[in-house]
Parts: sequence; C-alpha cells; structure tokens
Amino acid sequence: MVQLKGDERLDYLLAEDLRIIQSPSVFAFSLDAVLLARFVYVPIQKGHLIDLCSGNGVIPLFLSTRSKGQITGVEIQERLYDMAIRSFEYNKLGSRVQMIHGDIKEMPARLGKEKYDVVTCNPPYFPTPSKEEMNENEHLAIARHEIYCTLEDTIRISSHLVKQGGKVAFVHRPGRLLDIVTLMRNYRLEPKRIQLVYPKKGKEANILLIEAIKDGKADLKILSPLYVYEENNEYTPEMQEILYGKK
Amino acid sequence: MVQLKGDERLDYLLAEDLRIIQSPSVFAFSLDAVLLARFVYVPIQKGHLIDLCSGNGVIPLFLSTRSKGQITGVEIQERLYDMAIRSFEYNKLGSRVQMIHGDIKEMPARLGKEKYDVVTCNPPYFPTPSKEEMNENEHLAIARHEIYCTLEDTIRISSHLVKQGGKVAFVHRPGRLLDIVTLMRNYRLEPKRIQLVYPKKGKEANILLIEAIKDGKADLKILSPLYVYEENNEYTPEMQEILYGKK
Repeated sequence: MVQLKGDERLDYLLAEDLRIIQSPSVFAFSLDAVLLARFVYVPIQKGHLIDLCSGNGVIPLFLSTRSKGQITGVEIQERLYDMAIRSFEYNKLGSRVQMIHGDIKEMPARLGKEKYDVVTCNPPYFPTPSKEEMNENEHLAIARHEIYCTLEDTIRISSHLVKQGGKVAFVHRPGRLLDIVTLMRNYRLEPKRIQLVYPKKGKEANILLIEAIKDGKADLKILSPLYVYEENNEYTPEMQEILYGKK
Repeated sequence: MVQLKGDERLDYLLAEDLRIIQSPSVFAFSLDAVLLARFVYVPIQKGHLIDLCSGNGVIPLFLSTRSKGQITGVEIQERLYDMAIRSFEYNKLGSRVQMIHGDIKEMPARLGKEKYDVVTCNPPYFPTPSKEEMNENEHLAIARHEIYCTLEDTIRISSHLVKQGGKVAFVHRPGRLLDIVTLMRNYRLEPKRIQLVYPKKGKEANILLIEAIKDGKADLKILSPLYVYEENNEYTPEMQEILYGKK
C-alpha cells in the first residue's frame, strides 16, 4: 500500500522490479537519470553511494539494483523528498536506501568529508533565467534551473564528499562539457570516462555522461557512443535493453 | 616530372586528383591528417589558411581542393619541407599554396599576428621520451614526439596567428582532450565543434577532431561520430567516401 497525493502515479521503474512515485506536475524522471545510473561505476557488494539533486529518488532506486552498498539521496524540495521516501518504503528497501531532505551545500558538514565511494548527480541544466522566463511551476523550475545550486556547487560538494580514489559521475548537456571538465579539475576530480548519447545517427550528441576519480591520474577514455532512436523513431536495441531489460 | 629521392614514392592523394611525395623511412601521411583536412571549416572563395607541423604538406594539399584561398604550410624538418615543395610544384598549385621551412614559434613574428582565417595543426602526439625510448629514426621521432614543440606551443602559436573570429582546428588523441580544451581556453580559443572517431562499433574513440574560434562564445557541439571499420574490417561507407570519393 502506498498513499498517492494529487496527480501522482505509481509507475514501474522500467526494466527493474521496482515502482516509483511520479507526478507530471511535480517531477517525473528522465532518460538522463536512467543513463547516469547505468553509466556510473558502482561497488557491487558494499560501499557508500550518494546521489545529489535526487528529485523523486530515481537514481538511488536504480542504484539499489546494481549495488548492495548503502545508498543516500539528497533533495532540497520537500515535496520531492516526500515522494522519494514513500517510493523507498513501497519497495521495502529498508535502511539500505535513504533520503535526506536538505541543501547539498550543507552535506559535507552534516555527513563528513571524503566518506563516499561514489557520488552521482543529475544537476539542474539551465542557468537561472529572468523571472519572466522562469517556469511558473516552482517544482519544475527548481529541478531545471540553477536556483538553489550552480554547476560549480554540485562539483565542489561532490569533491568534498567523495573519498580519494572514489568516483564522481554526472549527466549534463554536451554544451557544458568544457565547464564541467574545467571545474572538475579545479576540485581535484580527474575526468576518466566520457560517454556521449546521440538521439539518432547523423545528429549531434544531446546527453553527456562523465565520470571522474578524485586525485586520479590523467587518462581519459571516450566510450563507444549510445544512440537512442533508429531512423524509424523506434528505440535502438541497446536502448530497449536499457529501458525494458533483456528479451 | 618530379625528382624522387631515396625511397620516396609519388602517391595518389586518395580521392583527390593530386599526387604527394612520401617515404616510408621519412614521412607518410596518416588518416588523422586526412580527417582534419576534411573536418575543419574553410572559406571557399578566399582567405588565408595556415597549417602548422605540416610534414610533407598533406594538409595544405587537401585544403587546396576545398578552398581557393592562400594556403601556407610550416615545417621545421628540411627533408620534409623539401618533399612538400616538390609535391606542390608537381601539382602546379602556383603561389596559392606555399611552404615555409622554419620553427612555428617564430611564425607570429615572421608572418604577423592575427592574420589568418584558419589555422590547422596535426601536432606531435607524444611527450618526449628518454633517449633510450626515442624512435631511432630522427625524422619520425620529430614528427611524433614533442621535441621541437609542445602541445602548448602549438596552441599558443595558433592563437597568435589566427584572427579574432577565425578558426583553429587540431587532430589529436582523445586522451589529451582535457589538456587541449584547457590550453585552448587559456589562449582565448573557445572550442566549438568536436568530432570523435572510433575504429569500430563498440570500441573507444581513438582520434579527436576539435575546432575552436578565437574569442568565440561558449557553445560546444559534439558532432555525429565517425567509424573507420565495419565488423568485417572493411572501411565503413562513410570512410570509403572520405578516402576514395563518391562512387
């Protein structure tokens, strides 16, 4: 049993045997989150993982299927935090997956420095626009725009939370690649793996996945690209497997 | 008529109606140069283009088929410079394509600052190794290792030579992406277009093409990737077209 509020739905978490509470007017997870949760390195048997700007907890939910470690999500919006904890309860994940309601900028003081093996983040993608241009829906505006945290905040905090030798993985737009790698290097995070996602053959990349290692040595790999759609607008076989599992 | 020296050959320049002097023991052009000459933006009717670390002049030769502008190559090795000028003469390119024998670091003083619309460079890829590890063939060692110029030299000189708003295009290994973008931004070159080349589907990228604009605004595009070989080790159709022309 789960209590759904307003226009919330209890959706299936794609290929996984999990359900997630979403709402079109508040927050619904994107392909970007799915791809980040699949891309990031995770320790399988144990370890401490933390997801910043967690929204309705989609990345912690996905990560719980890949790692038996302790997984923490952090979300500043109480409404989204509330969706996440109800989803975690519904899926009976116990104390292994937890959610913190708060500002990521307070987490190093609250949780301790350099305690995490893995940090993930699907941050707001857009600079804060003028009040006129801003999405009138406050929940969506906060999730999409750098209102409560900038790209630099998310990278600085990730670096403070992750152990030496630990991994930090982000998903963002390819147009921010240069800012991301510059900021990462400023905060001792050495980019090691990049994967680009293209909507279709012949198109420009529209999703960037990047993983860095704290104090790692310079040695970047650019992985084989991912394509989302075939020419006929159906998902590619690789994307079908990511979204719906092996046939 | 052309005079060939030692083990030189007069090779066809692939899809073009041009010939180029090469030598297995001195210098033969690589796929990287072909891809850079095809990737870079060029003004079609006029303009000034310069290619640094030009080797046997392969990039100026390719560029002469894409632009009617003035094209200059710069090469520090006299033996390679000599191959280039004989190739240019053979192809009757007149004064439109010329070669300078000299050190790229002297070119801004010699040619003037901010005079070029386009700068291309296929620089030495490898840091200078110890004497024991160095290629015993001096010509190949200079072309491959940062003996006479470092990556930073090539980027700094490119920035000095290119006009505001002009293009600078490099080919390099993907592992140096972060160094390249950091250095470019340090020298007012804003990366705008990246294309990654993969040997085959499912493999990591092994060639990086990158183009920046001097004092351009931040807005990076990552183009559709290129694959070199099919599963059966034949060239892909796109690569066949690049190498041998349209069928």
